[in-house]
Amino acid sequence: MAEKTVTMERTLQKLLEEKKYNSVRDVLVTMNAADVAWVLEKTEPDETARLFRLLPRDLAAESFAEMENECRETLIRSFSDAELRQVISEMYADDAADLVEDMPAGVVQRILAAADPDMRKDINALLRYPEQSAGAMMTTEYVSLRPEMTVREAFTRIRGSAVDKETIYTCYVTADDRLLGTVSVKDLLLAKNDSVTVDSLMETNVISVETRADQEQVAQMLSRYNFLALPVVDDDGRMVGIVTFDDAMDVLEEETTEDMELMGGVTPMEKTYVRSNPWDLYKHRIPWLLLLMISATFTGMIITSFENALAAQVALTAFIPMLMDTGGNSGSQASVSIIRALSLRELEFRDILRVIWKEIRTAVMCGVTLAAACFAKIMLIDRLLLGNTDVTVIVAAVVCVTMAITVMIAKVVGCSLPMLARKIGFDPAVMASPLITTIVDALSLLVYFGIATALLF
Amino acid sequence: MAEKTVTMERTLQKLLEEKKYNSVRDVLVTMNAADVAWVLEKTEPDETARLFRLLPRDLAAESFAEMENECRETLIRSFSDAELRQVISEMYADDAADLVEDMPAGVVQRILAAADPDMRKDINALLRYPEQSAGAMMTTEYVSLRPEMTVREAFTRIRGSAVDKETIYTCYVTADDRLLGTVSVKDLLLAKNDSVTVDSLMETNVISVETRADQEQVAQMLSRYNFLALPVVDDDGRMVGIVTFDDAMDVLEEETTEDMELMGGVTPMEKTYVRSNPWDLYKHRIPWLLLLMISATFTGMIITSFENALAAQVALTAFIPMLMDTGGNSGSQASVSIIRALSLRELEFRDILRVIWKEIRTAVMCGVTLAAACFAKIMLIDRLLLGNTDVTVIVAAVVCVTMAITVMIAKVVGCSLPMLARKIGFDPAVMASPLITTIVDALSLLVYFGIATALLF
Repeated sequence: MAEKTVTMERTLQKLLEEKKYNSVRDVLVTMNAADVAWVLEKTEPDETARLFRLLPRDLAAESFAEMENECRETLIRSFSDAELRQVISEMYADDAADLVEDMPAGVVQRILAAADPDMRKDINALLRYPEQSAGAMMTTEYVSLRPEMTVREAFTRIRGSAVDKETIYTCYVTADDRLLGTVSVKDLLLAKNDSVTVDSLMETNVISVETRADQEQVAQMLSRYNFLALPVVDDDGRMVGIVTFDDAMDVLEEETTEDMELMGGVTPMEKTYVRSNPWDLYKHRIPWLLLLMISATFTGMIITSFENALAAQVALTAFIPMLMDTGGNSGSQASVSIIRALSLRELEFRDILRVIWKEIRTAVMCGVTLAAACFAKIMLIDRLLLGNTDVTVIVAAVVCVTMAITVMIAKVVGCSLPMLARKIGFDPAVMASPLITTIVDALSLLVYFGIATALLF
Repeated sequence: MAEKTVTMERTLQKLLEEKKYNSVRDVLVTMNAADVAWVLEKTEPDETARLFRLLPRDLAAESFAEMENECRETLIRSFSDAELRQVISEMYADDAADLVEDMPAGVVQRILAAADPDMRKDINALLRYPEQSAGAMMTTEYVSLRPEMTVREAFTRIRGSAVDKETIYTCYVTADDRLLGTVSVKDLLLAKNDSVTVDSLMETNVISVETRADQEQVAQMLSRYNFLALPVVDDDGRMVGIVTFDDAMDVLEEETTEDMELMGGVTPMEKTYVRSNPWDLYKHRIPWLLLLMISATFTGMIITSFENALAAQVALTAFIPMLMDTGGNSGSQASVSIIRALSLRELEFRDILRVIWKEIRTAVMCGVTLAAACFAKIMLIDRLLLGNTDVTVIVAAVVCVTMAITVMIAKVVGCSLPMLARKIGFDPAVMASPLITTIVDALSLLVYFGIATALLF
């Protein structure tokens, strides 16, 4: 449990300081590989290697597979060639390929040298696929059966190859590398007798993905169909690997984090927040801040060009923040809903007109409510309570009409920009609040001063 | 495939219009249950039932389990008692309990009447757990083995009960309902011979959750440990059920959607965007819009109270949107990072000081960069290019100093509010951009006018 591990961390810290290595080892052995990885990541680099060497072989290999890259790099640099060979030989090919992809060149050479020839071939094959594709995400270690095998033969095959496979519970029935169907261990166990053939048990209505399919789409499919694994086929329809549910869960988590970061105006980070130093945070935040600051030049220009109107009716200035914020909030409500629906594949570009129509109707209701509430607020709070006589009924009317129009613009911009982004191949999350706020700000100010000029002067 | 289904939908629409029911049936039978559910959800209510009746028994039951509640309610209302009994008997107890939880009272009575006594007992037991807890999320249908069983006996047991179980691949070894360990079908298959006993194969270092554990935490654990299922124990340490990975994936997806909605200022919706009408959208958006609009009264009051300063130095007004936006963006960058880290359990409240210190250092770098860029922008664009002589060097200095201070305030507010929310038991996502923007706006205006008054008058 996450909670348990965190306090464990302190205990281990203490034990390490006191150099009670035997006890440290005893404590680590009681833990799950993912928790051991978590503990190791939190230690200082020179301690990481020492702790790792205390682990029994299996647990060491398993926890290595669960670690963040930074921690693994530290460890690899401290490994002897024999130690490295040991760890690599225990890894699955897809994990090893991911590792190779994320390490600097020198470390990669050592890893490839440490891998046995078969593993090296698998790693190289996986590395040929584009990053973030099904091909790069898959493992080549699955159980394949032939259609004419009996249940008894199938079990013999599964028993013989189970140790190396990421999942044995779904087996793939192939002939000449072509995927004919799937059969689960459950189906095999429930077969009437041992001599039934695999092809009479297999499910032939198989869903597969191509090697080039986007990893997020693959993960969504696994999540939607509740499969343990999804077969991957190449351009010629030959089966080349499987993507397992645990990798899909990781991808969904990563993609969600990336979407949220983009929605908050942060370029996606490779490291977690906890492992990022201020310089990392700076690098991923300053581009958006600069871009958005510069684009605020337009709002500044709009205000400057209406300077005289503002000087004559100073009361107008006081409502600028409220109009801007309401516009920004209305826009981000729409964009957030659309971005999420796009990423869950509930919406596609061709739905854009239906979406805009839905947002327009929503905007009318929101706009009217807000305008009415705003009028009441101005009359009651600003005029009566605060006694601000500059705020005339006409000023209130200008503000409220602007508000209704701003909400309308914001909702339409907020829902359509993410869909356009998807259409032209960008991540829709880029079109979230920060960018929409800037656009809506400029538009709402233009509306505001336009209406003010028409009604007040 | 999602893409495939969507075009399929049109084909089916056509076939239905032309009343070619045999072809419709033939098409549906080629599809996966999740896809059939998706197609049914998109049809008009009276067509849904007609289509559903065309399905073969198994596919009908499976696709029913995959549907949204609205669609299921439509179907149940159109079912005869015999049809309802048929569908319910094919469901897993946890799915049936979820169904009962979400249906109106009249429908619930019909469902419970249609369930057989055992199923009714299971449903009622599951309903006793608090919503969104491990107890409510679990299924009681798992395979339990006794420690003294041999591998052969274990397989007999698994074969005998497999049909009804959600997963058979992880079996739970219990004595007097107490969980002693887990053994996987893989371990059983790889056992040296058939007479080895289960207790010699089982993994005794078992991770379990309590019935009252929060569903999001349970889902995170499954995702972290890559388990197929997680056992659930009651207060007395007795095993009562398991939570499976597919339910965990659904929970993670729901919780992410909820977080994103809150971050965009939308109260969490029960329905998806596509299935929500404008009135649903209105109800979930207007509370935040009203709240935030009313709280913008403060920014208005701040501006009003500095009206004279603004009238004397009209140039100051033009920079209000830029300062507000930059503050809002800086704050939401910090809050988004923290909200995500909290929901992934990478951060806890006790890290707050470390987080604030990290954000302060980041804010210094961002603030200095932005202030410098802003100064250059004002001098080059506003003064030189646009020839705006009102914008003096002192005005530029006021703007830039305000910007640096605003960024600092925004980052500190943005990182600490979500952590405080978690501490006092709120969802940290509530403290995302909209609320933080409003707070930072008011603070940045105070700083702005404070500095302006000190330097310019």
